[in-house]
Formats: sequence, C-alpha cells, structure tokens
Amino acid sequence: MSRIARVHRLDAAGPSDLAALDEAVAAGRIDPARVVAVLGKTEGNGCVNDFTRGYATESLTRWFAARMSLSAAEVERRVVMVMSGGTEGCLAPHWLVFEEVDGPAAATASARLALGAAATRELLPEEIGRAAHVAVVRDTVLAAMQRAGIASAADVHYVQVKCPLLTRQRVQAANARGQSVATEDTYKSMAYSRGASALGVAAALGELPGQSVEQVGAAVCRDPALYSSRASTSAGIELMDNQVLVLGNSAQWGGDLRIAHRVMQDAIDLGAVQGVLADLGFGVAGQLGARERERLVAVLAKAEPSRTGTIRGARHTMLDDSDIQATRHARAAVGGVLAAMVGDTRLFVSGGAEHQGPDGGGPVAAIARV
Amino acid sequence: MSRIARVHRLDAAGPSDLAALDEAVAAGRIDPARVVAVLGKTEGNGCVNDFTRGYATESLTRWFAARMSLSAAEVERRVVMVMSGGTEGCLAPHWLVFEEVDGPAAATASARLALGAAATRELLPEEIGRAAHVAVVRDTVLAAMQRAGIASAADVHYVQVKCPLLTRQRVQAANARGQSVATEDTYKSMAYSRGASALGVAAALGELPGQSVEQVGAAVCRDPALYSSRASTSAGIELMDNQVLVLGNSAQWGGDLRIAHRVMQDAIDLGAVQGVLADLGFGVAGQLGARERERLVAVLAKAEPSRTGTIRGARHTMLDDSDIQATRHARAAVGGVLAAMVGDTRLFVSGGAEHQGPDGGGPVAAIARV
Amino acid sequence: MSRIARVHRLDAAGPSDLAALDEAVAAGRIDPARVVAVLGKTEGNGCVNDFTRGYATESLTRWFAARMSLSAAEVERRVVMVMSGGTEGCLAPHWLVFEEVDGPAAATASARLALGAAATRELLPEEIGRAAHVAVVRDTVLAAMQRAGIASAADVHYVQVKCPLLTRQRVQAANARGQSVATEDTYKSMAYSRGASALGVAAALGELPGQSVEQVGAAVCRDPALYSSRASTSAGIELMDNQVLVLGNSAQWGGDLRIAHRVMQDAIDLGAVQGVLADLGFGVAGQLGARERERLVAVLAKAEPSRTGTIRGARHTMLDDSDIQATRHARAAVGGVLAAMVGDTRLFVSGGAEHQGPDGGGPVAAIARV
Amino acid sequence: MSRIARVHRLDAAGPSDLAALDEAVAAGRIDPARVVAVLGKTEGNGCVNDFTRGYATESLTRWFAARMSLSAAEVERRVVMVMSGGTEGCLAPHWLVFEEVDGPAAATASARLALGAAATRELLPEEIGRAAHVAVVRDTVLAAMQRAGIASAADVHYVQVKCPLLTRQRVQAANARGQSVATEDTYKSMAYSRGASALGVAAALGELPGQSVEQVGAAVCRDPALYSSRASTSAGIELMDNQVLVLGNSAQWGGDLRIAHRVMQDAIDLGAVQGVLADLGFGVAGQLGARERERLVAVLAKAEPSRTGTIRGARHTMLDDSDIQATRHARAAVGGVLAAMVGDTRLFVSGGAEHQGPDGGGPVAAIARV
Repeated sequence: MSRIARVHRLDAAGPSDLAALDEAVAAGRIDPARVVAVLGKTEGNGCVNDFTRGYATESLTRWFAARMSLSAAEVERRVVMVMSGGTEGCLAPHWLVFEEVDGPAAATASARLALGAAATRELLPEEIGRAAHVAVVRDTVLAAMQRAGIASAADVHYVQVKCPLLTRQRVQAANARGQSVATEDTYKSMAYSRGASALGVAAALGELPGQSVEQVGAAVCRDPALYSSRASTSAGIELMDNQVLVLGNSAQWGGDLRIAHRVMQDAIDLGAVQGVLADLGFGVAGQLGARERERLVAVLAKAEPSRTGTIRGARHTMLDDSDIQATRHARAAVGGVLAAMVGDTRLFVSGGAEHQGPDGGGPVAAIARV
Repeated sequence: MSRIARVHRLDAAGPSDLAALDEAVAAGRIDPARVVAVLGKTEGNGCVNDFTRGYATESLTRWFAARMSLSAAEVERRVVMVMSGGTEGCLAPHWLVFEEVDGPAAATASARLALGAAATRELLPEEIGRAAHVAVVRDTVLAAMQRAGIASAADVHYVQVKCPLLTRQRVQAANARGQSVATEDTYKSMAYSRGASALGVAAALGELPGQSVEQVGAAVCRDPALYSSRASTSAGIELMDNQVLVLGNSAQWGGDLRIAHRVMQDAIDLGAVQGVLADLGFGVAGQLGARERERLVAVLAKAEPSRTGTIRGARHTMLDDSDIQATRHARAAVGGVLAAMVGDTRLFVSGGAEHQGPDGGGPVAAIARV
Repeated sequence: MSRIARVHRLDAAGPSDLAALDEAVAAGRIDPARVVAVLGKTEGNGCVNDFTRGYATESLTRWFAARMSLSAAEVERRVVMVMSGGTEGCLAPHWLVFEEVDGPAAATASARLALGAAATRELLPEEIGRAAHVAVVRDTVLAAMQRAGIASAADVHYVQVKCPLLTRQRVQAANARGQSVATEDTYKSMAYSRGASALGVAAALGELPGQSVEQVGAAVCRDPALYSSRASTSAGIELMDNQVLVLGNSAQWGGDLRIAHRVMQDAIDLGAVQGVLADLGFGVAGQLGARERERLVAVLAKAEPSRTGTIRGARHTMLDDSDIQATRHARAAVGGVLAAMVGDTRLFVSGGAEHQGPDGGGPVAAIARV
Repeated sequence: MSRIARVHRLDAAGPSDLAALDEAVAAGRIDPARVVAVLGKTEGNGCVNDFTRGYATESLTRWFAARMSLSAAEVERRVVMVMSGGTEGCLAPHWLVFEEVDGPAAATASARLALGAAATRELLPEEIGRAAHVAVVRDTVLAAMQRAGIASAADVHYVQVKCPLLTRQRVQAANARGQSVATEDTYKSMAYSRGASALGVAAALGELPGQSVEQVGAAVCRDPALYSSRASTSAGIELMDNQVLVLGNSAQWGGDLRIAHRVMQDAIDLGAVQGVLADLGFGVAGQLGARERERLVAVLAKAEPSRTGTIRGARHTMLDDSDIQATRHARAAVGGVLAAMVGDTRLFVSGGAEHQGPDGGGPVAAIARV
C-alpha cells in the first residue's frame, strides 16, 4: 500500500457554487473524508472588501460539515481552505481539491506528488510579521515535510500558508499587555504576515543561508532581496495560527502526479513557465495542445507589480492607477502569460507576493500526470 | 529613389509627454514634416470618460503645429492621430510614429512596409454605422491602398480607421431633417461606427464575398460572423469623416521594414502570435531574446471579451464585473499573451473589436526589420 | 388584542454579521418566529457581481433555519428577505428587521404601521417585464394590503417587491416553447422586471388612471412618465415569483410606529425629505437632534442618475463614468442629502429605480415612533 | 476708487472646455487681464492618475497666453490655477474665476470680498512637509493678507494653497546632498505637503497658539488635533514653490460680495452649512430657493473619510473599499450634504484634507452677493 495524492480542478459558477464537488462525490471521484485541502480562486477583487473569499470558505465549511456530520470547527481543523480572490483578465474561477487516498504499493521508484498539512500554534498579536512568526512557520513547514515523507527541501515545490492578520482589537490586546506590534495599520499587517510566513518557508527550505531568525525577522517587508522561491502565502482574519500545506514529490507516494516549479523573474517571464512544463515532460515549443492540457491538473503562481514601476525598462501603470488596485493588474498580466503557454485559463494566480519570489516576479508551479 | 517607411516606438511618461519625440527630432531620427501618422497607447480607462486620448491628441497637435508652423486644423489634415486608451496589466504607454521618407531605389525585389493614408468625406449623422458608412470606408481603403502602391488585398496587413460617433446634437440634427439614426444611444453609436468601419475594411479587402453593401450595413453590430481580419477601428467625437491608415507590404517601397498579421481566434491564441513572428523571420520556440526584440518595432492587436462568457469552455468574469469594464480586462489578458512571446510590454493593444476578428479574438500584426 | 409592527435597525459589521440579531434575540427584543421581513443594506457594488447580497441572504436563511428548526425553503416562504447592495459615500451597512407581534387592543383611533406580505404565482420567463407581470404584482399588492388591513391606497407608503430576472436558461426555455421574451439581454431583464413590478404597484395604488394593463405593459422601460410614488423593487436570480411587502398605516394596528412618504423630484430634493419628516411630527428647520433621531427607526429611498445628464441644469458625470457605475454615484448623492437632514447614515438607499418615481428622483419613506 | 472682487462660476463640458470663458469675455463680463485665480472642479478621479487636472491647467494656460500674448511661464506667475479632480455623486464640473477690478469708492462701511495672492520661495525637497514648509507658507499667507488689505485673521475665510510634492528625482537630489526627506513614498509626500501647508495657514491665522514651528512641523500627518479651519491645500507636481490665495472680507474693497466659513465637524454636519449661509444672510429653514441661489456665487469645502471608520457611531465603508478610493466616497457624501441645503450641484468639494478641519470633517466656505 502507498499513499496517493489526487488533485481535482473543478469549475465554480460563483463563490458558493459547489455543484461540481457534489457531482464528483456522486460519481465516486472524490471522497470528502480524504480531502486534505481546497484552494479556491474566487471572483472578488482580492483586496480588503473581497467577500467572495469568506463566502466561499463558509460554503465549503458547511458542505464538508454536512457531508461528514462534523462541526464547522472540526472541518476547519481537518481541511486546509485557502481562497484567493481575483480572476482578472482571462482567469477562470475554480476550485483545486487535494485528496490523500490509499493505493497499491508504488510500482515505480519515481517520486510522486506528496502532500503534507500542519498548523502552527496560535500567535500572539505582537508576534505577527516578526521573527517569532518566521520561526514557527519554519518549524511547521519542516513538520509538514516530515508528514509528507519529503526528505529533502529540493523536493518541495510549493508551500501554501494561510496566516493571521492584525485587527484593531488584537493591536489593543497587545498594547494592553505593554507590547508593540509590527504595524498598527491593520491592512499593512496582512503584508507583514504574508512576508514573515514566506520567509519562514524560505528558512525551512534552506533559502536563507547564514541568516539568523532575528535578521530575517528584521527584514520582513524591508529587504525584498530575501525571498522564497516556493512560498505562496495569504492572510485571513479568521485564524491566529498558520495553516501550512506542503506540496512536493516523494518516493513514498504512488499515483501518477508530479509537481515542478520555477521562479518568474518578472511578470512576463515565459521561460520560467516553459521550464516548469518541460520539467513535467511537456513539449514547450508552443501552447500545449488539447491532449497535453488534460494531463496538466493545476497551475499555481504569485503575481505582483514591480516596485520599480517598470518591466524590462518599459513603464507599467499598475502602481499609479487609482481606479484598479495594482494586484488586480498584476494577476491579469501573469494570467495572460501563463494562459499563453498552457492554453487554459483555470490558473491559480494569486497576488500579494511579499518575499515570494523577486520584486515583480514570483514562483510558478504546476502539477501534471506523468 | 524609392519611398521608405520608418516606424518609431517612443516612451510616454504621460499623455502629454513628448520628450522622446523632441529627442528623436534633435537627434535627426524623426523629421516632423514626414510624419504620416501617430498611434498612441495612453493610460486612461479606454472608455467614455478617458480624457487621456484627447489630452494626448491636443499635445501632439500643438507639437506638430509649433514644429511646422501650421494651424491645428492643418496638422489634423496632415497627420493621422489615433489614441487608444488603456494600459492594463503589463502594458506600457507609448507612441508609434510612422514616417514616409525618400530613400535609394529599393535594392531588392522584396516588398517592404508601405503606408497609405486617406480620409472619407464627412458623413451625415444618419449614415453613421450603416451601409453608407461601410461604402465610404471601403472606397477610401481602396484609395489608400492605391496611394500606398499596394496592388493586392493580400498585401494589406493592418488598417487603422478613426471614425465618428453620434452626439445628442448630431442625432437632433438628423431628426430635424426627418431622418432616423442607427441608434439614439450615443455610447452605442461608437460600437456601430467602429463596426461599420471594420466592415468597410472587410469589404475593401474582399473578406465579405457575395455580400451587398446593404446586407453588410444591416449586419453591423448584429452578425459577428462577418468581420475583417485586418481592421482596427476607433471612434472619436472630434471628426465626422473617417481617417484611414493602411499598412501593408509593397515592392514599390524600400527600407528594411515588413509587416505581417494573423487572427487570434480567442484571447489566448498564442499560435496566432507565433505565426506573425514566424512570418517575420523570428524563431518562436520561446520568448524573443534581447537582440531579436530590437528587430521588432511594433506590435498591434485588438482585444475584447468573448460574448459567450467563456474561453475554451472555462468561465471568464469580464462581462459580469461591474467594477472594471470588460474591455479593460480583455486588454490586460491579451497584453499578457503577447508579452509572453515578444518579451516586451510596449504593445498597442486596443479594445472595442466589433467586426474586427471573431468573437473574443481579434487581429494581431507586427512590424519588424528584415 | 391588536397587531403590532416592530422595526429594528441593527448594525452589520459585514454581510454575514448577525451578532446584533443574536443580541436582540438574547435580550428578548426580537422573536425570530414573528419576523415578517428583513431588508439588508450590504456593502457590495450593488451591480452584477455583488455577492454580498447572496452572502447576506444565505447567512440570514441559515440563522432563521437554526433558530426555528426550519429548512431553508421554509425560511424563504416565511420571511421576505431583500438585500440592497451599495453603501457608497456616508451610507452604513445595516439590517432592518420587521416583526408582527400581538399587543393590547389599540388604545387610540390613530392608524399605526401595518405590514402585509404576499407572493405572486411563479412567472413564466416570457411574462417577466410585460403586462402579465404588471397584472400579477398589482393583484398581489392588493392582497397584501388586505392582509395588512389597509383599506385605502392612500394609506400605503412603501411597497417593496423582490422580482425575478431572466437567465440564459430561462430565455432558452421560453424560446423552446416558441415564446419570445421581453429582452434576451439578461442584465437588462433586471430593469424590465423591476419596471414591471413597479408599475404593478402603481396600478394597485391607483397611480395609473385610465391605463389598461396592456398599455402599461408596453410602457415598461419605455415611458418614464409612468411611475409609482411608493414602489421599491429589486430583481434576484433565486426566485420566479414576486415577493411583496406592503408598508402603510392602519387603524387595525397598535403600537407606536407610523410611516410616511414623499417623492423626491430629483437627487437633491431636500423638500421631499423634510416633508416626510414633518408628516411624522419632526421639526425640520435643521438636522434632527440626537433625541429626535432615536424616534426615527428607518429611512428608505430609491436613487438613480437622471437620464438628462443634468441636475437642475448643471451637468452630472454619473452616466459617463466608466470607473464607477452610475447607480453607485446616485446612492452616494442621495445618501448625503438624506443624512444632511436626519443626521444618521443608516439609510436604506437603493438603486435601479425604473418607474419608481420620476427620472432622476424617487420615493423616500420613513418610519418613526409617534 | 476701490478694489472690487468678482467671482464667476462657469460650466465646464470637459477638462478642456473653456467655451463659457470665451463667452464671458465676449460679453464683457470677464477681463482676462484682471483674473487673479481660477479654481477648477474637474471630472477625473482626483487621485494619482487623474490627468484631467493637468489637462485643464494646460488648457487654461494656453487660453490666457493667447488672450494676453504671454508665455506659459508668465501666465503661471500671474494667475493662480488650482484644479481639484473628482465630481462624484451629484457634483458638477465647473470653473471659479476670481477677478480683481477697479470700481467706485466703496459706498458702505461694510467689508467686502478681498483677494490676495502670493507665492513662497521654491522649497528644497528636504523641506517639503516639514517645519520649514510650515514657516514659509505661514509667512506667505501673512503677505497675501497684507496685499488683500485684510488686517485681522478673523476676516480670513478661506486660504487655498497649491503646494509641491516629492518625485523620485527630487528625493535623489536631496539624498545626493546628504539630506533625508519627510517620506520617500512619493504618493505620501502629497499628504505631507498638503498637511504642512495647511498648518502653515493655521499658524498664520493664529490657530496654533503656543506651538513652535518645530513642534508644528513634527506634527505633520501625525497629530490630527492640529488643524486649520480655513485652509484648503492641494499638491501638484509642476511647482516647487507654494501658491497662496487668501479670501476674506475687507473694508478696503467694494463690490457686493462677501465670504463666510464654518467647520464641518463630520461629513454630515448640516449645521455648519446652515451657519455659513446664515452668516451671508440666507434663510436656512429649508433648501435655498431659485432666487436665493442666484445670490450665491461659490461654495467651497474639503472632504475626507473619518479615520475612525464611523460617522456618529455608524460604520462607513469608505476606507475598506478597494474598488473606489476613499476620497471619492467622501466627496460624494459631502457633495450631497451641501447640495441638500443650497439646491445647486456646482460645488467645489475637494479631497485630501490633512490638517484641514477635524478628522472626517473640514472647512466649508461660501461667497454670496449681499
């Protein structure tokens, strides 16, 4: 017997539309009890007042609760749910459902897609976005790798973290104890939390050699030269711990899925996309054909506008547009670049990429059948 | 002696920034007196209240007037100026300056980039968006081809038309004469005008075999199956005639530029982009390298959201987004697809593609040095 | 014994925040079993992709289902729930909860706030937005008046209707039966449905003397001169019937609430607002003071941009703004005008006012303790 | 002989539409040579990428240059031009033209509207937004008061300041001299500059008793308790000095205009608006009637969202809306409140109110014929 990871990409007609999930269960393709994580690309603005994320999370929670006779709290402990708002440009709203099932002993020596989920302890408000945050995420990523049976950091290709943020109440609670916080601006606290989480991933994966956790904590949202090539982090108001999902390849796992990743150096780095696809055995002289596309089950990437205000020397207007948030522009651009190559618009492109890849770029990962 | 077309792609720091034009003139690279047309990609929203187009046109008009001691009206008669608003996603604001200069007799038998500009008579309001509009654009495209020395429609690769629109005053003037207009909705009149102009181009280029001008006029904004593979049309309030710029290849022209085009069948049709580049002698197995990019002097494309609400079966949200206009999403997506291949974000991607390519797709053209 | 209407205005920290409702129940101020209707002002864009309305409706439905051990379908039959998106400018998200409870026999001869809810039969798609739609809403308003014990149309001050819209599937179903629909544009079908519902209210209230239902049906979205001074209608995808809530005054009801209304002739018609308040016994020489504000329990109004593009001769830019939808501008403006007078921002200002008051204006109603 | 101030409120069909100005000159109502200042309410977003301000300024500059045979630089020295973007909600784009003309000796002892314009020296980048900035604006306001013949600060009712901002180049220039700047974030530098200018006005008008200029400089954008009740400041990229226009009443001036002001304590402070109107002799029991409105020639106000996130305890959503900038919401709200009272939408409501009135409120001024 071996562990097998299954990944399902399902259409979403709206943030509460789980018809495709119902159908997959009815057809025996998904077993709710084996679902480890659901990532959702929802159609809100991906910014402060994006209620599609909460709506989707609540819909999923109720769905799992009803299917498995669990309380909402039990569902939340059992299933990592990360919603990313924003389907700008050509992007399609969709769900990515990750299952761990049992299968026959792996017939081959090749490593296959492995999943590992874990949660940190709850943070104190004053820890968010600082060295302590980096440290607990680092340790939890290592724990999740162990659970996934991934021995080497080199075999980790994508780490999703859902991390907490500061609210006025949390800031006040810290202040009442005589503690300062990383920032009193609650919106900025999302960036600090995403940044610290990403650097925690980087620390776990050996991407910050020679840096103490204190040095790394001090660099959060300050030194963009420090980053993880495999982190994707997202802040939510509903938690004070950090939920971690590690995706990599492991010889302990069977099935037919593999994952690969590269780092886009800027928003239009097609070479990185081709690299990921080539790693997974695709021909990349042109857009994937219909048959090849069926083999590709998920594409995940981070997008952000370069702080320089330029892409290869030419000006972009993302940061100066007061009508459309910069992250919305960035997702649309990166979505176009990815779709150009893969010929599919069901792409999990998410914004807010502090310390997740270089300025203006970001990690890109893909999962495909061998 | 032969005619030579020169094309300059210049950076714009804003809609009134002509510093790059000043510099090119100072360096002897551009002769204001030889400029035939300027296309500008400006950073407004590309929709109704986009004042960057008017601001850019006024700035250019004054610039030419000062440089050549002409009145504004004389500049307008002499230089075709078409501004396209919207630099969503990765797109960079820029100017494309087209010159016709004299050069040595063409040394080769190969056809080179040829330019032809012409204007229709002024339309009556009741003609806009109808068969009469189609007919005058058709005839004027043929006249511009002749001026450009392009004998065959097959050698035409891009036709830019700037066409009029209806205002309340114009509708009333028609009504006062007992005439109806194509639509009393002045915003919609832009679509009708763009559509009729595009079908005029299609008629001139033989793309509508067996269709009478009356049939074509009746199909404007009604039958998307009729379209031109080479038209790019844009409506403006400041004119009642139609200004036409034909770009093609002709053996009568010298220099080192050639143009090619393809039709994107949908927003993510990378194959069409690769086709255009291959036609111009570029290797297309991956993104163009820095050296190849220098050879590429302009990329022009139309973008629009598919009316089906899907791209290859996956839902897009462009048409349902009440916060960002659909054409803004479409430009961002197509900009990403083009940039993926050419490695440059100075792309003239314009929206509002009625009868300019199939639903959800559009023409894409490029000009490069041989 | 007499019937008594209670109205609660509760804060909402977000579209799923029902903490104030929980609190009111815990304190014995609200009995879930007696709730007739909930109107919610939610903070989405109030346009096509406003998911805060659905999120709020789902949250309320689950809340009532849990409190009363009912199915969702039973809750929907029992409680009229109408969500209006858009809290632009100074407007505050909030809930208005309407209860009918029993009380001592009315001590006075004065009429008091009376509630009447009723639903039409389900419409066929081909009926939406047409004469048949007008007719069934008219009849159902009359039925709801009867239930409410309101004998005279003059005592009706506000009629909320939630009405259906067309989807692609519904259009196809009609077409398959050989039937046409009012419009094949599903977004426009919302306007037709709101318009027909409003004219149904107008017909019931005797506001369309001498007009046959066929004439009225033909005027939907065509003749803005026909309108109701008391209708507020809103289209939703989740129903095919029409849910009607009539608010008026009736001597059969006890308690201490009264309702009044006026019609704003344009977006800045302060006189109409003063008129409503004066009808309810408030001094209106200036903004209501803190004590008077406590007496005022709800303010409801419709807002829309005037189609003339002007307000008292001065240009507005609402209809030309491609960055912000016109209805968002209109709600912000009317919200400011109302808040100026009442000194409170918890105002139920809703957009989309076809046949609900004159062009650019709309009904305004208020409920206050005597 | 005495000095007379004339104020003209003119319609603008767009940011470059000066037809009303042409007409006023043709009719002899305006003498271009006597124009001291033009304030323009333009229809852009009022934020970073609002090109309507620059477009309007350029159009005005050219207009004056042509009318008076001056260079653009001479026009800029002669006429204070301040454009405020954003006509959200009911607001109407318009121009306010201020002239100083000669007239018969003042027949009455009453003070009349007086104008005083002056400019500071050019600032160094490192001075912007700091104590030095406060000091030079303070001194220049005093100089402008003297020029206007306004002896007492109590007679000053509105001070418009156009102030500089930091660009990357300016920051680098300061850094190259070993100097730090108030903020390296160029967008934030606008707030610092507006704030320092406003506090300079406050210092000049005696609104900061007992505060040293160093203390005040340290409070810029930090202590909202310090503010001017009469400042309206706006930052522009095109200048390094500060242009000041003081409006007040002076017995040295003739004519029939007077100005008054109050401070709105929050966005819906109708009492302040009534106070201003009452000071100018209007009845304020309801909206001004048509005849009274003719007497009112200008209304000017500042608007901003309260940082508390509430208005009188009820939540507003301005600061959390990632689709519409908070200042746009605030202008729409305050525009509605003002229009409610004055019955006219040609209101100069401008955003970005750092240290211009209390948090969430702002100064409101009006000019009327006696």
